[in-house]
Amino acid sequence: MKLATIKDGTRDGKLVVVSKDITRYCAADNIAPTMQYALDNWERVAPDLEVLYRDVEHQAVPCERFHESEALSPLPRAYQWADGSAYINHVELVRKARGAEVPESFYHDPLMYQGGSDDFLAPRENIPLKDTAWGCDMEGEVACITDDVPMGLSAEDAAGHIKLVMLVNDVSLRGLIPGELAKGFGFFQSKPATAFSPVAVTPDELGDAWKDSLIHLPLEVDYNREPFGRADVGKDATFNLAQLVAHAAKTRNLGAGAIIGSGTISNQGEDGGPGKPVSEGGAGYSCIAEIRMIETIKDGEAKTRFMAPGDTVKIQMKDKDGHSIFGAIKQEVVQA
Amino acid sequence: MKLATIKDGTRDGKLVVVSKDITRYCAADNIAPTMQYALDNWERVAPDLEVLYRDVEHQAVPCERFHESEALSPLPRAYQWADGSAYINHVELVRKARGAEVPESFYHDPLMYQGGSDDFLAPRENIPLKDTAWGCDMEGEVACITDDVPMGLSAEDAAGHIKLVMLVNDVSLRGLIPGELAKGFGFFQSKPATAFSPVAVTPDELGDAWKDSLIHLPLEVDYNREPFGRADVGKDATFNLAQLVAHAAKTRNLGAGAIIGSGTISNQGEDGGPGKPVSEGGAGYSCIAEIRMIETIKDGEAKTRFMAPGDTVKIQMKDKDGHSIFGAIKQEVVQA
Repeated sequence: MKLATIKDGTRDGKLVVVSKDITRYCAADNIAPTMQYALDNWERVAPDLEVLYRDVEHQAVPCERFHESEALSPLPRAYQWADGSAYINHVELVRKARGAEVPESFYHDPLMYQGGSDDFLAPRENIPLKDTAWGCDMEGEVACITDDVPMGLSAEDAAGHIKLVMLVNDVSLRGLIPGELAKGFGFFQSKPATAFSPVAVTPDELGDAWKDSLIHLPLEVDYNREPFGRADVGKDATFNLAQLVAHAAKTRNLGAGAIIGSGTISNQGEDGGPGKPVSEGGAGYSCIAEIRMIETIKDGEAKTRFMAPGDTVKIQMKDKDGHSIFGAIKQEVVQA
Repeated sequence: MKLATIKDGTRDGKLVVVSKDITRYCAADNIAPTMQYALDNWERVAPDLEVLYRDVEHQAVPCERFHESEALSPLPRAYQWADGSAYINHVELVRKARGAEVPESFYHDPLMYQGGSDDFLAPRENIPLKDTAWGCDMEGEVACITDDVPMGLSAEDAAGHIKLVMLVNDVSLRGLIPGELAKGFGFFQSKPATAFSPVAVTPDELGDAWKDSLIHLPLEVDYNREPFGRADVGKDATFNLAQLVAHAAKTRNLGAGAIIGSGTISNQGEDGGPGKPVSEGGAGYSCIAEIRMIETIKDGEAKTRFMAPGDTVKIQMKDKDGHSIFGAIKQEVVQA
């Protein structure tokens, strides 16, 4: 089934069930008022939501037109947002650009950072930027939402705790990252508010494209209305979402509604080297930093600048028939 | 006023107003069902909660006996938990123990890490530990809870957004920290579930002891029922709580109910060097790592071991008349 959170003037919005073609919705008030409520009581309410989803599909209930611009992020705020870095190709490029090796441990011990989850952006909300020197970048990713996850579970067991999947724009301030990482405590100011896709879907919605806790479809990232990234999410993933959930839960429980992200989607080129731009027939990039690293490796310096007010990003994913699965994240950078 | 969250079988518990002497409480249901609700609507509900607090003080409303063991952490789960490191003495000792300098920037740019906030421990809940090799440690701290904080505000303006203060045990797994920090993304598995004091109080409750967004009273940390730390929270703080809130909000808004912590409270010795143990008349330590660093500096190796199943920690703070302000965090490490 497909779920969304519609703006209604409250902090947590209103949970709705969305049709498969994401054109219509029906409020789920009488089952679960909010997405967090649904996740807190998933075992009890999910079957009722599934029934409503079938009714929406069969037009057996009154529906309203679903406008993606009226959606908040599926969880407008969350108790947990942790982002992994499953696509080591991205990490390899970062390191290569600065002449450093990738530690061997990175191939079996996921990188993960704890994100801020109190104030997500809506899927169509502008990205407020105070200073272009902060190096604003998009990061196209996928993420899952879990129910209650017990501490110390295996990746195999973690797979069953993935209740919903969605897309992410993990906005990053590249100019602030080196200074923050040098301090040793990881990202903080360099990771401002994140945005998620208008719609979150249960894994079964993905059909054959959901395998081994990975989505086997390309993530479409358009930058300033031009194709920028078409990386296959199922390719070159060193870790799947279940492994990332298990990593996050190694020393603590995860509460219902925990969001665990994949990190920037990144494919290798056909020769195993850096991938080519979309305009040259490659899978392109899901963030600007990556093309800058490739420019640095090739030409000694990065030419593509980071985002500035007026720049736009669109992130979506289509099924094999070309239909948008999650709706589109569409954001413009604005001066804050 | 003093507020607490009482266990009622739900995830978010029930908001209650607690008497100044923390012996009695009255449910605040009709004003705000939960602490998060109160913070989401602070401007509207705080005056009503204050009225109820006065009624509780005057015994003008029916009250029940307040048992600290029946309290959850004031916010049993939160949308934001970020912990600073305001007591640079602690950082200086860490660095000194490994022969490293403290970067000059640490004295004007706070260290802060993003903590997990989806599954806090109750103030009297055991600390589950899978493996003693993980090096379990307590960290005695204070923290504030904010209302909505706009991005980019000044520290002066941030002071007014501090609505409640409380105590923290920021449990740390020291054995996992070096590996995680070496990966470059900061803490994750090394920071398991945190616990907070049974009671959160408005800053005015602290009287003269609240000055410049700091609490000017000693934090009492007892380890295995012996005095271990008596560090003055108002002393040797390089940053106050308002400065830490402003730091957290530099590139993003903070949502109502954001928890911002001070980091481990740590006082210098009288000569400006490492502080002495409580048993030798010093202010002692708010975590085991600190005494281990002092042992390392003095004797070349740490002797005090980290926490193991059966070890207990108690963290509280008393006013000038010796009355507990926040109730006590009392936890025992247990095998998970």
